[in-house]
Amino acid sequence: MNSTSSPTQSRRMEIPHLDTDARTRDGASIVLETARERGVDICFANPGTTEMPFVVALDRVAGVRPILGLFEGVCTGAADGYGRMAGKPAMTLLHLGPGHANGIANLHNARRARTPILNIVGDHARAHLKYDAPLTSDIESLARPVSVWYRSVAHADDLARDTAAAIAAATAAASGVATLVLPVDLQSAAVNETASQPRAQAAPAVPAFDAARLARVADLLRTGVPAVLLLGVRALSARGQKAAARIAAATGAACFGETFPARAERGGGLPDIDRLPYFPEPARAALAGRKVVLAGALAPVTYFAYEGIPGELAPPEDLVTLADPGEAADAALEALAEAVGATADVDGVRVARWNVEAGPLTPQTAGRVLADALPDDAIVSIEGGTCGYPFVTASARARRHTILTNTGGAIGQGLPVALGAAVACPARRVFALQSDGSAQYTIQALWTMARERLPIVMLIASNRRYAILQTELARNGQPADTPHASRLTLLDDPPIDWLALSAGYGVPAERVSTTQALSRALDDALAHTDGPRLIEMCLA
Amino acid sequence: MNSTSSPTQSRRMEIPHLDTDARTRDGASIVLETARERGVDICFANPGTTEMPFVVALDRVAGVRPILGLFEGVCTGAADGYGRMAGKPAMTLLHLGPGHANGIANLHNARRARTPILNIVGDHARAHLKYDAPLTSDIESLARPVSVWYRSVAHADDLARDTAAAIAAATAAASGVATLVLPVDLQSAAVNETASQPRAQAAPAVPAFDAARLARVADLLRTGVPAVLLLGVRALSARGQKAAARIAAATGAACFGETFPARAERGGGLPDIDRLPYFPEPARAALAGRKVVLAGALAPVTYFAYEGIPGELAPPEDLVTLADPGEAADAALEALAEAVGATADVDGVRVARWNVEAGPLTPQTAGRVLADALPDDAIVSIEGGTCGYPFVTASARARRHTILTNTGGAIGQGLPVALGAAVACPARRVFALQSDGSAQYTIQALWTMARERLPIVMLIASNRRYAILQTELARNGQPADTPHASRLTLLDDPPIDWLALSAGYGVPAERVSTTQALSRALDDALAHTDGPRLIEMCLA
Repeated sequence: MNSTSSPTQSRRMEIPHLDTDARTRDGASIVLETARERGVDICFANPGTTEMPFVVALDRVAGVRPILGLFEGVCTGAADGYGRMAGKPAMTLLHLGPGHANGIANLHNARRARTPILNIVGDHARAHLKYDAPLTSDIESLARPVSVWYRSVAHADDLARDTAAAIAAATAAASGVATLVLPVDLQSAAVNETASQPRAQAAPAVPAFDAARLARVADLLRTGVPAVLLLGVRALSARGQKAAARIAAATGAACFGETFPARAERGGGLPDIDRLPYFPEPARAALAGRKVVLAGALAPVTYFAYEGIPGELAPPEDLVTLADPGEAADAALEALAEAVGATADVDGVRVARWNVEAGPLTPQTAGRVLADALPDDAIVSIEGGTCGYPFVTASARARRHTILTNTGGAIGQGLPVALGAAVACPARRVFALQSDGSAQYTIQALWTMARERLPIVMLIASNRRYAILQTELARNGQPADTPHASRLTLLDDPPIDWLALSAGYGVPAERVSTTQALSRALDDALAHTDGPRLIEMCLA
Repeated sequence: MNSTSSPTQSRRMEIPHLDTDARTRDGASIVLETARERGVDICFANPGTTEMPFVVALDRVAGVRPILGLFEGVCTGAADGYGRMAGKPAMTLLHLGPGHANGIANLHNARRARTPILNIVGDHARAHLKYDAPLTSDIESLARPVSVWYRSVAHADDLARDTAAAIAAATAAASGVATLVLPVDLQSAAVNETASQPRAQAAPAVPAFDAARLARVADLLRTGVPAVLLLGVRALSARGQKAAARIAAATGAACFGETFPARAERGGGLPDIDRLPYFPEPARAALAGRKVVLAGALAPVTYFAYEGIPGELAPPEDLVTLADPGEAADAALEALAEAVGATADVDGVRVARWNVEAGPLTPQTAGRVLADALPDDAIVSIEGGTCGYPFVTASARARRHTILTNTGGAIGQGLPVALGAAVACPARRVFALQSDGSAQYTIQALWTMARERLPIVMLIASNRRYAILQTELARNGQPADTPHASRLTLLDDPPIDWLALSAGYGVPAERVSTTQALSRALDDALAHTDGPRLIEMCLA
């Protein structure tokens, strides 16, 4: 979008007027068709003037569904949630450098999650860049830090090839955000279809693991040395967790999931594999004196620097890699189980209700009520420290569900990820368990959820503070009640009225402060499939 | 802010514990004192864990006022509005690369406005960067495109010097955003005060204009060649406009303001100097066949590329520079008036009411009602095409006021700029005349306005569409009613309930659809000085 003024009479923008020769197509249609052929058929869009030919092409090319966001961070976060659940990229459609910039924070999270995304950014006509018009900026400098691949299309004949290359890069082993910049004149350029249409390629398979690494880890575990398996994304599939539990039972190894997984299966009879703690002291204690087997996880480091604590949570000499994050860590774990003779199935946690007593809502009771309410195959997008971990603790005995967490620490990710997950999985119920402070960064997500009639259930943990910052102050013996420190960590003046805010975006909402009320509100929300619901949880 | 989980027992974050030796200070206090000595005493903040030592220092160092935003784009836009009105920088306080990224769009606008800003970004401890922890990113790559100056402080002893250098760069002739990255370990480092405290420097004066250029322009105008004066920021001061009007009356030259000025004075007896039209056809017509005298304005170019229309709105050989944007264009115009004998005062537009008839609200009638309602010395932040230009047309006969516009085209700028202007000018009434679509990008500004009790009057032009995009489609003869094009340019499903949204952030609001109702609502809003008010204008 761009700021402008009163319109006047006609002279054309760069929008395609195609001749009737069927062999030529406009550039935007070529991009869309190339993407659609590779399975990219969702477009999270916040277009502006330089994306109008692309918008027009969305009506010409069947099979790509555009979904409008009121803010670009909603689009990029939704593409992240979509990619995590669909296992293939969505495309974005963003408006030049500044529009892309509004999407960077959630692209940063997607980069950490290794989520495949086709990040399409419109740009000025190539010949217009030299004038340094107001919206001109260095898109490459802004996009490189979050992109595994970047290209600004240089010629019309490159459109199909570059689109295909972007999707290939996004879905390669080192998957991530592929940023494709489309100058508006190329979106509307006439392209000879036969000359430029590349053949569709098969999606690349997940790279296998390394047999030599497997043998080394198996040898290590057979020695009986104390070990801990640290599970990254693919290892947190149901297969991966079951294999890890077998290995643990057979060898005495401990098991942890990485602290902020892009995606983890949980409940429904799976073993209760805790995540590596966030704060460094318990994390170090969990790993101390053990060999750390990295199964799709990165070497664990502290989130921030803490005085007198090493950044590495385990000494480098104690790290052993079974599989890299891009590799088939679940298959590697199954092979490892076989190699160490851990073939006997291990009982997971039986599905059971917590049946929480009537009483005030706390992070613990809220987590248990939500765990009880989850239907089969639910998806839970978690953002924020207050309620996230207590829920995960409780949900080991819930029905089978998928957890999506904030991988990069850029907050404002939970609601858009829930939105994208709901688009990817229309048959599954999606929940967003969300802290109030971080919900504000992409609050406009509510409008798109309502617009698309996505039956997402949002639970806002309303404690009216940046609780983590008060925790960090307290950890250091600093008072949080000095005038400025308290004012910069409290959100109670004015209190955000979540019911009003939600109504403002067309989302029905209610406020609860007891376990019974939360339980009823969840039942009521789940009875509706016509759109989102928001529940403000007032915590005791 | 960052995403985390359950706290545990103590081990220190990097927060200053100072010894009692009065000669040492923590690094954050040094930065704050250095800034305060140079008049930088407002901090628009959205801090996270790596900014906690800075937050603690705000309670140690008196005289810097922190103002919390729920989203970084609110902070950077507010710093832009503050800098435009105060003529000196505010500081921001942002959380690493992703937090900064959320502020880039409005820093882009500030860059185009040449607004001085001390853009402070916290970072990991220097020794922690090598671990590539989740929030690590390439801050420099993200910040350079919007910064006139960038530095990540390397040593504790550099803190004061680098802070002073940043402020000097922000306020130099080529003014703009100076980005100062503060690793958290340096914020908490003990610094020897006497060794590092630099002397305060006088603020640099506005560079004078070039006498040779003045002589050349004077000679040109004396020949009687058709000319047009194009006025940039400093030329749009009251002095500059009066001098331009004298020159125009004496020489027959036409006068235009640049299309999107960072700041322009208007009304209260000033001449009615129209802005150069946005769309290229009328802009070219306004300049055709004339020498274009650039008085603090850049060479005019089209906002976007349009088919068959040159990017340059005037041929380069017709451009003559009187003063560059950083120079004293108003003084140059006064000297030019003197040089061409244009000394006789010219009558401006007499202040007069429009006394709009009762009837439906249109952009035209709304603009006139607002023009009538402006008290002396009002400030009007304008964003959006629907109502912006009709208001400016009407406001030539309003009381004296200052107009702030969107300089870089990154939308989501109008509300934060109004917020910053209100902080800079507590004695003046501030209005935000704002399109509904663009208001959404930084809607969280409402909360900070309520929190700080700023009596800002927001007028939301609610047409439930991205009208400019529909205009661009119509200009090209494209239908806006095809399924996707219409759905991507319409905001009516669901309609945003502005009254609810406003209430959600603690801002009283009302909805009006007639001229009388708008007039009454403005009277009512102006009678209150205890906080913001929002008026949703439903346009006919």
